[in-house]
Amino acid sequence: MTQPRALMTAQEMIELMEKVFPQALAFGFTIDEVEARRVVISLPTQQEHLRPGGTVSGPTMMTLADTAMWLAVLAAIGPVALAVTTNLNINFLRRPSPGPINAEARIFKLGTRLAVGDVSLRSEGQEDLIAHATLTYSIPPPEKRGLPVA
Amino acid sequence: MTQPRALMTAQEMIELMEKVFPQALAFGFTIDEVEARRVVISLPTQQEHLRPGGTVSGPTMMTLADTAMWLAVLAAIGPVALAVTTNLNINFLRRPSPGPINAEARIFKLGTRLAVGDVSLRSEGQEDLIAHATLTYSIPPPEKRGLPVA
Amino acid sequence: MTQPRALMTAQEMIELMEKVFPQALAFGFTIDEVEARRVVISLPTQQEHLRPGGTVSGPTMMTLADTAMWLAVLAAIGPVALAVTTNLNINFLRRPSPGPINAEARIFKLGTRLAVGDVSLRSEGQEDLIAHATLTYSIPPPEKRGLPVA
Amino acid sequence: MTQPRALMTAQEMIELMEKVFPQALAFGFTIDEVEARRVVISLPTQQEHLRPGGTVSGPTMMTLADTAMWLAVLAAIGPVALAVTTNLNINFLRRPSPGPINAEARIFKLGTRLAVGDVSLRSEGQEDLIAHATLTYSIPPPEKRGLPVA
Repeated sequence: MTQPRALMTAQEMIELMEKVFPQALAFGFTIDEVEARRVVISLPTQQEHLRPGGTVSGPTMMTLADTAMWLAVLAAIGPVALAVTTNLNINFLRRPSPGPINAEARIFKLGTRLAVGDVSLRSEGQEDLIAHATLTYSIPPPEKRGLPVA
Repeated sequence: MTQPRALMTAQEMIELMEKVFPQALAFGFTIDEVEARRVVISLPTQQEHLRPGGTVSGPTMMTLADTAMWLAVLAAIGPVALAVTTNLNINFLRRPSPGPINAEARIFKLGTRLAVGDVSLRSEGQEDLIAHATLTYSIPPPEKRGLPVA
Repeated sequence: MTQPRALMTAQEMIELMEKVFPQALAFGFTIDEVEARRVVISLPTQQEHLRPGGTVSGPTMMTLADTAMWLAVLAAIGPVALAVTTNLNINFLRRPSPGPINAEARIFKLGTRLAVGDVSLRSEGQEDLIAHATLTYSIPPPEKRGLPVA
Repeated sequence: MTQPRALMTAQEMIELMEKVFPQALAFGFTIDEVEARRVVISLPTQQEHLRPGGTVSGPTMMTLADTAMWLAVLAAIGPVALAVTTNLNINFLRRPSPGPINAEARIFKLGTRLAVGDVSLRSEGQEDLIAHATLTYSIPPPEKRGLPVA
């Protein structure tokens, strides 16, 4: 079986976000790996991401998981900026260690209307999961995939 | 059956966040209602919360849901800042209308170690849900509830 | 606003199950209330539904929740037997009391392709939830809604 | 790092179910692999598991996922029959092929009070997932782990 190729590169993803979704870029993550059904991104955690007890906040980890899956969907179907999350389920498992957090998104199923996958979050260099999410993205029909760009 | 009373007021919640969690306050929401097992908060949506297509981003709604449930847990058990989310499941249902978003959190179960509830998100003044979340919070044992305040 | 009417009665639901899904009926529940966006069913719990400790098993409650939502979808869209669950999330909250269990399904959103709602499970006559589920059903496109009946 | 060993064998799990949970055994599955943090079981699907359209029912897959994770918890902590599911989230991805279904449970986190993991369901011999579940089990404190056996 031939492995499918990713339909966008990391650089093309960054350029897409600059045009249509600069807030996503402002979150401050890097794109580490892009494959046809798998994307890994990292977030250097900063003061603004912390919550009481000095740990990374839940919303920061949810945003990271959602972003990783959005990019994995883009890698799988190309620059369809309007793909939107319909369901996200996340379990917070361990307190992260200080330092960057990696989020590895994998796609389980890529249908014509829905993409489903999971995201594993780890403190950089560690094997244990700090959180695990499953997400469903809705893929717009072809006639509605145009980008809201000038 | 006597209805239990909320263990914190909206004002006390704001003062707690000022001390231990200023990032939560910086998110920009208001606390509209506080009851023993129910809290309603609102977010005036701004440019920074938007995503492609002009709609409020998923992470913004997740953060709002998580914040509403955290405050509902505080209303139920008092100022235990270290309560943390262990599970969040959210369904995104409709595109929000322009304007503020209301999040109504209700607690289904308040145990000694876990609190479980749901959050209904609506565009202000409308009945239809734009998103619905269920959350589990872990409540620290009494000896670990001290606040990390100076 | 005129309230929509249910597109099937309880009796019609039972006849549909007799024809296309006798295993569902064999589960042994009764249909108590049918509205356009809400259905209540009940299960008299029996020895076969129990698990260690004498409590009703998780799979029994999941089956009850799934059945209640399936019937709520039928009430909303008519006899489309091929509607299938795509996501189910359930929190188990309290040990049920002996006796029947009620499951109240409500639909949050009825789209052309997806229906999303929740199910509240209670021991009969009690207010506290014993479990709470949210479900998404996929609705087949009109040309695939034919029933597999003789 | 030394890999931990499973605290029960497949044969010991079967004997435990014969004593305290015969309904689980009546479900008809086999235990294929047992490791310290991973268990694989299989279900030969039969007429009673089917739903309209000839596919395996959602409740059958939920029961299989729940059973696989329960056994993975037993492998990890020993014969604590009273461990109970507190949360289950499942996505149904593809229609199963005819024939047995495999369920592979892995534990992400084993705490003193909670175990969290996921279950991947596949039609035997195929790589694509037909369903994916994440589950949380509550582990009773040591003084309440006694089995309800004669």
